[in-house]
Amino acid sequence: MSDHPETLPAFHALAWTRLVRGVADRHAAARHPTLATAGPDGAPELRTVVLRAADPQAGTLEIHTDLRSPKAAQIAADPRVALHVWDDRARLQIRIAANVVILTGEEVASQWGRVPAASRISYGSDPAPGQPIPAALDYRPGTDPAAFAVLRLGIARMDLLHLGTSHRRAVFARADDWTGHWLAP
Amino acid sequence: MSDHPETLPAFHALAWTRLVRGVADRHAAARHPTLATAGPDGAPELRTVVLRAADPQAGTLEIHTDLRSPKAAQIAADPRVALHVWDDRARLQIRIAANVVILTGEEVASQWGRVPAASRISYGSDPAPGQPIPAALDYRPGTDPAAFAVLRLGIARMDLLHLGTSHRRAVFARADDWTGHWLAP
Repeated sequence: MSDHPETLPAFHALAWTRLVRGVADRHAAARHPTLATAGPDGAPELRTVVLRAADPQAGTLEIHTDLRSPKAAQIAADPRVALHVWDDRARLQIRIAANVVILTGEEVASQWGRVPAASRISYGSDPAPGQPIPAALDYRPGTDPAAFAVLRLGIARMDLLHLGTSHRRAVFARADDWTGHWLAP
Repeated sequence: MSDHPETLPAFHALAWTRLVRGVADRHAAARHPTLATAGPDGAPELRTVVLRAADPQAGTLEIHTDLRSPKAAQIAADPRVALHVWDDRARLQIRIAANVVILTGEEVASQWGRVPAASRISYGSDPAPGQPIPAALDYRPGTDPAAFAVLRLGIARMDLLHLGTSHRRAVFARADDWTGHWLAP
């Protein structure tokens, strides 16, 4: 796994292999990226998310969220996000800059249909995520399809760092048709 | 490890125990947090960092960086950062908002003195980190004490999420003297 990427296309392909694996394999590193949004005051905010879809052809990723969560509001205000994966097995850091489209309702009926019943109770809890509560367990799960949203990330840029005998780093941009170029690590 | 925190002080103490462990134990989750800065255009940027110091009394953390790195420039422009740890062993997510002071030169002579020789070559490579290079290995490590900087994070807020039989979430702020209150997870 830790053989170094020799060429720019191989480097780019390696990152997508690991992202796609994150969707399929709940134990893969890319299953649980860290998502950064610009908070209400412009300072960044971070949280772990679950990677639900990865499309190398379109250059898109998908994450599910409660539409009432602070991150959904932050993305509505500023759709520019960053996503981070450290894949220890591949010795690969993936840093993504993306623009998010928030999909809801009829647009996500098929995704909602594939959410397992046990997971549906994460969408529609009361109070909404991040609201103050008087005691630790003063909330209850709830299932509300109207609270289910899909964050579709259109990747703009992917900065990759591979740690090997020598470190290698490259950046790939949609604007350059993902040609990529090497960077000093 | 995954016993849930019963009280707000216990929850806060658990986070610090895990952060301090990250400094001492290179295999602990908190050894390698994800750091978010506001990028040049205001969109967030993320990267893995190494936690070098954690002081529960002062509410501060320390990270080392090359002073010529983009993150150092971004922090100089906007010192508000976020730091994220997912500690699988403790089933704990730590989300930190902090303000950074960049320390260099004489101020960090003692820290530089403790950086192992093998690690010193990370400070002063040529070209500087993030600069374009024509081929993957067209850079060389370098040791330059003037490129060594310590990022001292003064924590403003810590948002903790513990995943157990029931999930528990609380936020602690310096402005409230770390009293904390519960949030809906």
